[in-house]
Amino acid sequence: MESMTFTEQLKIFKIGGQLLEEKEALENWLTEFSRLEGPKIVVHGGGKKASDLAEQLGISVEMQEGRRITSAPMLEVATMVYAGFYNKQLVSRLQALGCMALGMCGADLDSIRAKKRAVHKIDFGWVGDVEKINTAVLQQLLKGNICPVFCALSYDGQGQLLNTNADTIATELAIAFSPLYEVELNFCLELPGVMTNPEQADTLLPHINRITYSQLKETGQISGGMIPKLDNAFRALHQQVPHVQIGNSSNVFTQKGTQLC
Amino acid sequence: MESMTFTEQLKIFKIGGQLLEEKEALENWLTEFSRLEGPKIVVHGGGKKASDLAEQLGISVEMQEGRRITSAPMLEVATMVYAGFYNKQLVSRLQALGCMALGMCGADLDSIRAKKRAVHKIDFGWVGDVEKINTAVLQQLLKGNICPVFCALSYDGQGQLLNTNADTIATELAIAFSPLYEVELNFCLELPGVMTNPEQADTLLPHINRITYSQLKETGQISGGMIPKLDNAFRALHQQVPHVQIGNSSNVFTQKGTQLC
Repeated sequence: MESMTFTEQLKIFKIGGQLLEEKEALENWLTEFSRLEGPKIVVHGGGKKASDLAEQLGISVEMQEGRRITSAPMLEVATMVYAGFYNKQLVSRLQALGCMALGMCGADLDSIRAKKRAVHKIDFGWVGDVEKINTAVLQQLLKGNICPVFCALSYDGQGQLLNTNADTIATELAIAFSPLYEVELNFCLELPGVMTNPEQADTLLPHINRITYSQLKETGQISGGMIPKLDNAFRALHQQVPHVQIGNSSNVFTQKGTQLC
Repeated sequence: MESMTFTEQLKIFKIGGQLLEEKEALENWLTEFSRLEGPKIVVHGGGKKASDLAEQLGISVEMQEGRRITSAPMLEVATMVYAGFYNKQLVSRLQALGCMALGMCGADLDSIRAKKRAVHKIDFGWVGDVEKINTAVLQQLLKGNICPVFCALSYDGQGQLLNTNADTIATELAIAFSPLYEVELNFCLELPGVMTNPEQADTLLPHINRITYSQLKETGQISGGMIPKLDNAFRALHQQVPHVQIGNSSNVFTQKGTQLC
């Protein structure tokens, strides 16, 4: 008899933006998510509300190349909105659906260490680039049937919280867990996936590879905010994450988004 | 030989108010706390900043009998300040000190279920009275050398977060764990303990029992905000919590506050 190795799946979902704001759509998404069997992780953003709260408090919101410049007051706002407002609402709703959720930032259980980004052309402020994922502690949670719910905050191991993009956290988790699980990384956007013309539903690409991606960038059919998202997603694929999907809340569970290959 | 049972100690500390605002004092406190061996839990408040943020956002802050009336917008503010701002800063600082901290609200790991307080004379809004502590899940954390850091939020098991006084959460945790550990419950205030005259350091009582407490209330030597605190603390003692102390950040680790007996 041949020896066979069965690797367990780990499903990672990044949700953000509009989905967090739409009560009914979010509830439907959480219901489907809570029904998934096996190890799973949610990573969520919440930048829109963070910007709104900052504005209400008279804190200026600066963006550079689609990334937030994180001043000290902006980090406080991010901590309140990501780790407080959204994280605890998601955990509370998931618990009601029978999912043993645990809300976390990177400081919790020393789970995600990052390094404050060095200043080159741009000073991003209190932004962290992930250096180390504590897979051992997270795997213990997953084995205990606990679902970590991560917000977009890491820390430096020295007591300083840092802002880290939620797409990046999801990607880093997926990469770190790839030697341990068969990882499925899913990004939930507003769009159903990668489309050559977002106005036309039939232009949704069921698959995309690096070559078609380059071509579509050249012709301008993929542009704007989709580019950093796809760069991030392709980085996961390149780093041995076997399944990477870009979809929306309706198609992500049925694998009807765009699969990276 | 006689059979002997050694019950492990569990140390619970409630910190709040001014200590959270004083960077250096807090760092000293966290340093001493992180050095304590064995199972331990922190519970923190943060009401002052919650009130400040509410005011900045034009949300009215209502108090009744020293308790906050929690409107829906006030609950959002509490969630941001308690579960976000303070909780993650404390966790991040503790991790830097080598303490394997995990920030939690009652929804995380279904740890603290509460019931929305019924409306009698006063409608307290989104306030929860604790019904059930998930000691099993928390004991697993404690056995894994993890230190839960609780903010003052519970939930109803149906997806609704609820505001629950941090003193109450600390007391309920102490009561729930008393059959499992030899619990030491410590409240850190601004004052060094119960004083018959807060202006005079030598009026600090090393011990207080129910009889002296009643007498001091009658003579007006104990009044105001100390009364609900002591009622809460005596409730813990009455419910079999063997060690209950009221002190401040400087004396709480040396047991030089007021011991309830």
